[in-house]
Amino acid sequence: MEIASANHEKSGPITRGLAWLEIMLGKFKAKVIEVARKTKTVGQEDPRRIIHSLKVGLAITLVSLFYYFEPLYDGFGVSAMWAVLTVVVVFEFTVGATLGRGLNRGLATLLAGALGFGAHHLASLSGEKGEPILLGLFVFLLAAAVTFVRFFPRMKARYDYGLLIFILTFCLISVSGYRDDEVLDMAQRRLSTILIGSATSVLICIFIRPVWAGDILHNLVANNMEKLGIFLEGFSAEYFKTSEDGQSNHDKSFLKGYKRVLSSKNSEKSMANLARWEPCHGRFRFRHPWKQYLEIGTLTRQCAYKIEALNSYLNSEIQMPIKMRSKIQDPCTKIISEAGQTLNELANAIKTMTRPSSVDSHIENSKTAADNLKALLHTGLFEETDLLEIIPAAAVASLLIHIVTCTEKISEAVQELASLAHFKSVEQTVTVPEQPQIVHQVTEQPFSSNAEPHHVITVDESSTGSPENENEPVLKTG
Amino acid sequence: MEIASANHEKSGPITRGLAWLEIMLGKFKAKVIEVARKTKTVGQEDPRRIIHSLKVGLAITLVSLFYYFEPLYDGFGVSAMWAVLTVVVVFEFTVGATLGRGLNRGLATLLAGALGFGAHHLASLSGEKGEPILLGLFVFLLAAAVTFVRFFPRMKARYDYGLLIFILTFCLISVSGYRDDEVLDMAQRRLSTILIGSATSVLICIFIRPVWAGDILHNLVANNMEKLGIFLEGFSAEYFKTSEDGQSNHDKSFLKGYKRVLSSKNSEKSMANLARWEPCHGRFRFRHPWKQYLEIGTLTRQCAYKIEALNSYLNSEIQMPIKMRSKIQDPCTKIISEAGQTLNELANAIKTMTRPSSVDSHIENSKTAADNLKALLHTGLFEETDLLEIIPAAAVASLLIHIVTCTEKISEAVQELASLAHFKSVEQTVTVPEQPQIVHQVTEQPFSSNAEPHHVITVDESSTGSPENENEPVLKTG
Repeated sequence: MEIASANHEKSGPITRGLAWLEIMLGKFKAKVIEVARKTKTVGQEDPRRIIHSLKVGLAITLVSLFYYFEPLYDGFGVSAMWAVLTVVVVFEFTVGATLGRGLNRGLATLLAGALGFGAHHLASLSGEKGEPILLGLFVFLLAAAVTFVRFFPRMKARYDYGLLIFILTFCLISVSGYRDDEVLDMAQRRLSTILIGSATSVLICIFIRPVWAGDILHNLVANNMEKLGIFLEGFSAEYFKTSEDGQSNHDKSFLKGYKRVLSSKNSEKSMANLARWEPCHGRFRFRHPWKQYLEIGTLTRQCAYKIEALNSYLNSEIQMPIKMRSKIQDPCTKIISEAGQTLNELANAIKTMTRPSSVDSHIENSKTAADNLKALLHTGLFEETDLLEIIPAAAVASLLIHIVTCTEKISEAVQELASLAHFKSVEQTVTVPEQPQIVHQVTEQPFSSNAEPHHVITVDESSTGSPENENEPVLKTG
Repeated sequence: MEIASANHEKSGPITRGLAWLEIMLGKFKAKVIEVARKTKTVGQEDPRRIIHSLKVGLAITLVSLFYYFEPLYDGFGVSAMWAVLTVVVVFEFTVGATLGRGLNRGLATLLAGALGFGAHHLASLSGEKGEPILLGLFVFLLAAAVTFVRFFPRMKARYDYGLLIFILTFCLISVSGYRDDEVLDMAQRRLSTILIGSATSVLICIFIRPVWAGDILHNLVANNMEKLGIFLEGFSAEYFKTSEDGQSNHDKSFLKGYKRVLSSKNSEKSMANLARWEPCHGRFRFRHPWKQYLEIGTLTRQCAYKIEALNSYLNSEIQMPIKMRSKIQDPCTKIISEAGQTLNELANAIKTMTRPSSVDSHIENSKTAADNLKALLHTGLFEETDLLEIIPAAAVASLLIHIVTCTEKISEAVQELASLAHFKSVEQTVTVPEQPQIVHQVTEQPFSSNAEPHHVITVDESSTGSPENENEPVLKTG
């Protein structure tokens, strides 16, 4: 240390300054490179982000034209600024969010403007001394009450922003009224500029490369299901091979994909809330059954919890003996493959919005395999072995049997979505040419044997399905 | 139907009108009662909500005084409205959120105001024709760039609101400058009114019954742990008794408590982000290790996933034979009770901010019980029984062994929190009078044997603990 500082002192202030500058420049360069790298990552992860940024820039620039052009400016004056502010706070990534905020802002301004005007009028009747006191009281009561209403879960989910703007506009109109007698004029200017800002945002958001919350939810739910399918495929290969090959060096990243499913509840919920604001678009009607996606999401997550448990046996210290492993391998891999195919097909059915055609046969197969597994365990094949060594295998077997139940529930929920959202039916022979059980399957599936999806319920009622199948669609459409 | 309508026709328009009015009044009354009931529920769930609402009302009323009093009004004029708006948008439920928004708004206004003024000046140099074009270009570029930056996960977590206000203020100042030549004056007025609004919000938020995000996170993490403990207690009673008593009719609501833990990730994350804004308060320093709570939360959730799997065996159709159940009952209940006590004590340690004293002995006990369970399974006690019937028992046993590992990990994370946050040590004899392993435990726990928490690291290094224990605190404080 001391030698170094002695060298420094010898080299003089200019050399030291240059060295310091060089270090700083190096650090700055590294920082710039890091930021550039991150920017690239953020953009590559989802290119729609770049487009969204440009859209926001465009909307703000368009609205600020009010300021530059004389004839437009003369109509609104300084209030034109509200239009710019509105675009900044209303323009969101998804159409649902933008529409929700725009409508909230517009309606809240309208209502609160009227109420504020009323409050101003009422207060002005009470004379010069009473006016500020009465106005203060109104503002206090309204702000406190509306702030409390924001805690109601239902209001929070859909109208939180509107309630905020309600307080804001009420204060603005009623309090300003004390100084400025042109309250009505001001309220009207505020409302019209806000409407212009909201309309610009919504139009640009919808007509230039729109991002629909409904699409995001739709794909999220389907992809989550797919991730579970991918895990199951990988699990089968991993669990029944490692002990033979020793340490397997495959890329195990596909085994991590399902982890995101575990914590997807909140994003599904908020997307479903936003999707409800969206008009009909692409393959979705205005009142698309978004709630049913949450149902499917919940069931998918329940399946993911089982898979999380399954995953812990991949790295368990207690490895079961190879001979036992090979005995249960057949029914286990059958269950895994059938359950994986079920999930993949359900995910695909949602993505393509067609009724899942061969899912029932996959579920039947997985149930048969589960019964085989049970029977195999029943025969007491393992009596000679140590029970401790069987535990992981038994736990895996038990989890797999549970997963079969889970996939069945998911399938039911997807079938319900298919009927609620009028999914298209596809020709069985086209989608599942390799299925031997086609005939059996058609009789079992009232949905997929029906060419006109809009008459599903009638077909259901006349079919000889189980009582649950008969009642469900009727109840849901009642 | 027809008879009813015939009766209606007979009764004349007045009677019908009255009947309709009665129905409407009834409906209205029912609606009012429902809203009142809901309001009561929302208030009772968390009485701080009522206080928060009153605080917001007070803050807005205080700031609107600017308008009513001549001397205050003269300083700011119409701009005083910005102070009211600032209170409305800045005042949040927790101190962290209010401070975060206030600081974001203040700093963003300062920076964007300066930049906007610069842009206005630069544009005005380019002549009358070039000015609007150049201003438009600046606004477009800045809005697009900053909107894109909002997608960076780190920026989004802490500075999202600031970035929004940055765009807003930049547009406001640079665009307004085109018409209004007193830009500097306007920027300064905007800044000072926003500072007044933010300061009022922050002061009222902190000094009148504050709600700290840190407190919420702290209690959330501790309560989640406690919920798992409660489940384990209930599980033990439920699983080993139902088959003897037949259908047990106990209240099973305590078995549902853990479900919330599964989806607590997002609230923990956002609270940790908000807590970082908060100054030192109560038992927390300014740089309290909030990140460590997330670590503990993640491990707790991993334990909750195992418990979710465990829960499915409570209602499993395959019930294991009573004689087998009674054989494994002892080690299983021991594991459950020790793991439950570990979780409860850890939760309590966090709540009271004292070092957990008897946790290590509970973990040791649960490990011993797990070994006993393994040994019991090892002896092949169950060879005569059907393997299929053993599966649920084996799965439960396996899950319990996993839960022991989980609680150990949680304990390590809590110990690290205890050392990072300098938890108090308590006299061992006071807290655990019934523990026979006190002597053993003191030698094993470098933290709790140390009376001065601030010298933990020195004690650690000189102690004869394992290498991991020695290195960890050193690394963390380096």
